Amino acid sequence: MKKGFFHVVSPTEFKGLLKRFPALAAAEAGLLEATGRTLAADVAAHEDLPMVNRSCMDGYALSARDAFGATEGNPAYLECTEHLPIDRIPDTPLAPGHCVGIVTGGTLPEGADAVVMVEHTQELGAGTIEIRKSVAPAENVMLRGEDARAGHTALPAGTLLRPQEIGLLAALGYARVPIHARPRVGIISTGDELVPVESVPAPGQIRDVNSHALGALVLGAGAEVTLYGLVADDEDSLCAAVERAVAENDVVFLSGGSSVGVRDLTQTAIERLPDSEILAHGVAVSPGKPTILARVGNKAVWGLPGQVTSAQVVMLVFGLPFLRHLAGDAEAFGDARKNLRSATLARNIASKQGREDYVRVRMEHREDGSLAAVPVLGKSGLLRTMLRADGLIRIPADTEGLFEGQTVDVWLLT
Amino acid sequence: MKKGFFHVVSPTEFKGLLKRFPALAAAEAGLLEATGRTLAADVAAHEDLPMVNRSCMDGYALSARDAFGATEGNPAYLECTEHLPIDRIPDTPLAPGHCVGIVTGGTLPEGADAVVMVEHTQELGAGTIEIRKSVAPAENVMLRGEDARAGHTALPAGTLLRPQEIGLLAALGYARVPIHARPRVGIISTGDELVPVESVPAPGQIRDVNSHALGALVLGAGAEVTLYGLVADDEDSLCAAVERAVAENDVVFLSGGSSVGVRDLTQTAIERLPDSEILAHGVAVSPGKPTILARVGNKAVWGLPGQVTSAQVVMLVFGLPFLRHLAGDAEAFGDARKNLRSATLARNIASKQGREDYVRVRMEHREDGSLAAVPVLGKSGLLRTMLRADGLIRIPADTEGLFEGQTVDVWLLT
Repeated sequence: MKKGFFHVVSPTEFKGLLKRFPALAAAEAGLLEATGRTLAADVAAHEDLPMVNRSCMDGYALSARDAFGATEGNPAYLECTEHLPIDRIPDTPLAPGHCVGIVTGGTLPEGADAVVMVEHTQELGAGTIEIRKSVAPAENVMLRGEDARAGHTALPAGTLLRPQEIGLLAALGYARVPIHARPRVGIISTGDELVPVESVPAPGQIRDVNSHALGALVLGAGAEVTLYGLVADDEDSLCAAVERAVAENDVVFLSGGSSVGVRDLTQTAIERLPDSEILAHGVAVSPGKPTILARVGNKAVWGLPGQVTSAQVVMLVFGLPFLRHLAGDAEAFGDARKNLRSATLARNIASKQGREDYVRVRMEHREDGSLAAVPVLGKSGLLRTMLRADGLIRIPADTEGLFEGQTVDVWLLT
Repeated sequence: MKKGFFHVVSPTEFKGLLKRFPALAAAEAGLLEATGRTLAADVAAHEDLPMVNRSCMDGYALSARDAFGATEGNPAYLECTEHLPIDRIPDTPLAPGHCVGIVTGGTLPEGADAVVMVEHTQELGAGTIEIRKSVAPAENVMLRGEDARAGHTALPAGTLLRPQEIGLLAALGYARVPIHARPRVGIISTGDELVPVESVPAPGQIRDVNSHALGALVLGAGAEVTLYGLVADDEDSLCAAVERAVAENDVVFLSGGSSVGVRDLTQTAIERLPDSEILAHGVAVSPGKPTILARVGNKAVWGLPGQVTSAQVVMLVFGLPFLRHLAGDAEAFGDARKNLRSATLARNIASKQGREDYVRVRMEHREDGSLAAVPVLGKSGLLRTMLRADGLIRIPADTEGLFEGQTVDVWLLT
């Protein structure tokens, strides 16, 4: 791309560029470490799960046929041969007219196909059990193979491992599983007016906010983060910093440089690196238009706007989904991972066509029990609009605005 | 409480018992480590933020009075004395009829009260700038103290530190902040039928699922977890394991023991410890009724149901909010931290009055663009109902059920 050429893409095109970067390589991890990560390969069941027919209840295992039609007024009477402890399997098949005492999780004997709950029975002594309720075949029984079948895929590649999937993997005997690696993210702040958080700013200086706010966002998305601190606004320093950060990470975010001069500097510094390419120099969203996306080798390098609000919104809308995409999440760019809540818009909001707008809103509980979304107005260089916001409303590019009283989806920032 | 006495409390009473445990002590942490944690003390601003009036735009700083009424057709003409780099502060106050070039973030000179964007100006040479648009006082300016005022509390104790709050703390010069400690959680699995995940189960045995699924849930809530593995179903072993786990953690979860005998065993083992008290022996929710809550010293010990689904639901509904409560989050038990999504119920669901029900549901996108919540039926001893569920629907205790077509809030499990 020609130097200085200002190539602004649509949000859809921008996501398309991001999706071209492949998911990170597979790595093996223990079960707890794998929580919240994405499977990098199919996982097969080597055995049926449950391995046998197991009881869901404390009670008596029997053949449903033997208690057919049993009621309180017309009970069935069965011979109880033994009470099975949970870890004992039955020695012999169950004979007709017989039952065995069973606990939750216990293995059903051959010949038994149902369990009647202990509450619906009465021990009459001498091994006779009164059954006061009929049961259907398979009632109160977890059937062999209901959770997984031997030789079949239990969880396909690309599955997000929630606690319940971790439980299934444990049940199948997988102590370690193949997952996509956690993205390593480097963050560089530029801006000659910036000083580190530990410093007292001289007149004209301010402390570096973006390194920390963006680092916190990255951590929240489950990636690893390295802060490279402040780099001077000159081409050589910037170029060297990016080169190092690219070598040590999977993704690099540069923040600062919302003014045209610094934006050009960022672009030039990236272009000096071998095998580099500017993919987008601006994206049609507000806040966040002056966002640069580049490729250095097979790694993404972002130039984020310097304004704190703009940088955070671009990170939320594109950056964090991209990190989840690199971590193998097929739903990364969709709404499935967002905490969306319906609310009534408290005020008209105007919006420019051709640009996707993200409006900060506060949530207010109204007396009628409804939720109202109240736009938080203010300058995007200030921290307060994001501080006071409970969430964001997206106004699509083809819309001129939203109306008071309209139902909107608020993307909650928690 | 008398041994064997079965004290079932309502969900509200249960939460009341949990709220009596105080938040964990304060600890100091670096900014990134503090992300997602709760402030343990008020944090004051030691200086105004911004420290000075700063420009939101690239353009010219001026007195709004000097550009009053300026338009394209009737521009104002001002004398530009200098172009201020971002880290330079003006030496002298701005004289009437003058302006200075300024970049985004730059400091306004005394005498300037607004910034006109560079797009609405024209350099005419010899230091003369044509101003083609009037500006209001404070327009395009971040005013001193708009984000925080010196001597005032910038963030009160109890604030959840999202990335935007981390940014504010950085801006105020706090590299380390006081936060409530991260809860340390010990998990013990009991059940004579259980074997570790690495083992091949003999007939009648199954692998330990709950340690891993519950551990994954705890990690996802930002707490630290230690798995104590499997403990035999006898009072001495159980008592020793609980004693050790209580000493090493802030909270202990025992899983296993959904059958009455093991439940009694858990209770007895806890009661043998010094300064112990059973607070609840059952809670009116389904699944999850056979849940024990105890106090050992000032620490909570939970006896979770052994059924995998029940254990996970109790952890989601009560356990994880409790961990967030210990971490100082005042909203821990509310809906604010839940990912709730509206959907149309696809089927009637019956429910017993006097019991709060949590029904697993799948989310389905319908052709008309709406979201449907489809109940996932199945035995709670199986893993599959939680595996197939995208979320939970809560049916309040005073309701006999929900109807097909009704709008429900689905609590998404992501």
